[in-house]
Amino acid sequence: MSDETVTSAFLIIGNEILSGRTKDKNLGFLAEKLTEAGIRLSEVRVVRDEEGEIVDALRALSERYTYVFTSGGIGPTHDDITCASVAAAFGLPVIRHPEAMRRLTVHYATIGREFNEARKKMAETPEGATLIDNPVSTAPGFIVENVHVMAGVPSVFQAMVLELLPKLKHGTKVQSRAVSCTLGEGVVAEALGEIQGRYPAIEIGSYPYFRAGYFGTTLVARGTDIPVLEEVADEIRRMIREKGGEPIEARPEEEGKEANAG
Amino acid sequence: MSDETVTSAFLIIGNEILSGRTKDKNLGFLAEKLTEAGIRLSEVRVVRDEEGEIVDALRALSERYTYVFTSGGIGPTHDDITCASVAAAFGLPVIRHPEAMRRLTVHYATIGREFNEARKKMAETPEGATLIDNPVSTAPGFIVENVHVMAGVPSVFQAMVLELLPKLKHGTKVQSRAVSCTLGEGVVAEALGEIQGRYPAIEIGSYPYFRAGYFGTTLVARGTDIPVLEEVADEIRRMIREKGGEPIEARPEEEGKEANAG
Repeated sequence: MSDETVTSAFLIIGNEILSGRTKDKNLGFLAEKLTEAGIRLSEVRVVRDEEGEIVDALRALSERYTYVFTSGGIGPTHDDITCASVAAAFGLPVIRHPEAMRRLTVHYATIGREFNEARKKMAETPEGATLIDNPVSTAPGFIVENVHVMAGVPSVFQAMVLELLPKLKHGTKVQSRAVSCTLGEGVVAEALGEIQGRYPAIEIGSYPYFRAGYFGTTLVARGTDIPVLEEVADEIRRMIREKGGEPIEARPEEEGKEANAG
Repeated sequence: MSDETVTSAFLIIGNEILSGRTKDKNLGFLAEKLTEAGIRLSEVRVVRDEEGEIVDALRALSERYTYVFTSGGIGPTHDDITCASVAAAFGLPVIRHPEAMRRLTVHYATIGREFNEARKKMAETPEGATLIDNPVSTAPGFIVENVHVMAGVPSVFQAMVLELLPKLKHGTKVQSRAVSCTLGEGVVAEALGEIQGRYPAIEIGSYPYFRAGYFGTTLVARGTDIPVLEEVADEIRRMIREKGGEPIEARPEEEGKEANAG
């Protein structure tokens, strides 16, 4: 834990997300884990399985943020081009990583399957890469510069994120306090804006929801200074009462998940 | 329906998606609807509620694709800055749109609530914008240049997308054929790559899945020429049998949804 701001971006690689055929499940997981670790997720991009697209996005994000995480495109088939794209982005040759070869050789011997040429592709990394362990299905992810390349299959992606996170630099954790009410956003907007104006170090978000026939608003304050955060939450509760509502304590992990903000 | 390729990008605006507090539900919906309409979704970005970030993304995406769609940030509260950001991106003043004012005046009179200053913010658009109807909660979205600004709340977002889609230019619809098998990707990779090599106009994707203790691979062929697509699907079925597997007919709308591709 430090006072530093640690930033990151997530690059999701895959036509199947963009066609709607596959629904992404990795963003929500990664976003939660990064927030818990005090790493700010600043930007997400989803791009097609095309080397030029991947290279452009990698370069833009890698320059700008402390860490870049990617998902997808590291399997054995022809459409898995993430390794080649990362290598191209950083001007590195692709090699068969000796430790990845060792792990996969043992893996396929153990399960009694041939370690064929296609599967050897899963041992490829850009030269000089560090491996990310894969406790689910062996084939590792890898790290080049500040880019962390992981699988797209959610069970494998999640396992890799959990392997990786303790090894990253953690910033000051952003805490949140959430208070809901059954008042509309239009009722609280002006007073909420005033509170925000008085507490510039706290980020206040307003999230309307529609749920089983009734609607309401969840107000979320985020910041790193707990006493100030509590003060803002108290101001929000007071404001809700002044507007004729009743503050409902919202546990951040439960509220608002069924609705994007409006 | 035309032979033209119509491209698009989706810009999701909102800190709450990046913090993991809210799980996005709009991408999957939009991606499916665009695919059905023959509009290719080429890129997605998620950015924070910061004007500079939104403006940069809008300019980059607007120049590059036929259409840009946005979600989030059009409510009445201080953290809703999408309208101001779109105006800034195109160098336009923000005005109170007369027709939006009319609709919201009627709406609040009907429900017996005050049409206060905060709520009037929801009638703001960049000058010259065209409205997108909101059959759920009245406050409209809007169109400026090729940018289509919609709400973040999924029920409202979805209604706006359905209002909007018939009015857009539709390209040639990309069709897909999906065949699953219980063979691993490493078994089919080489032969699949050969099929892909012989059919450059068809895009073949390979998506591994892990499901209730067993694993397999779904192979998806995408293209606009149906006879060629059927031919490729037949080749894939034949290849699966040659490798000792059994082709399982996968309905594209059911397969693979529980797993990102790897």
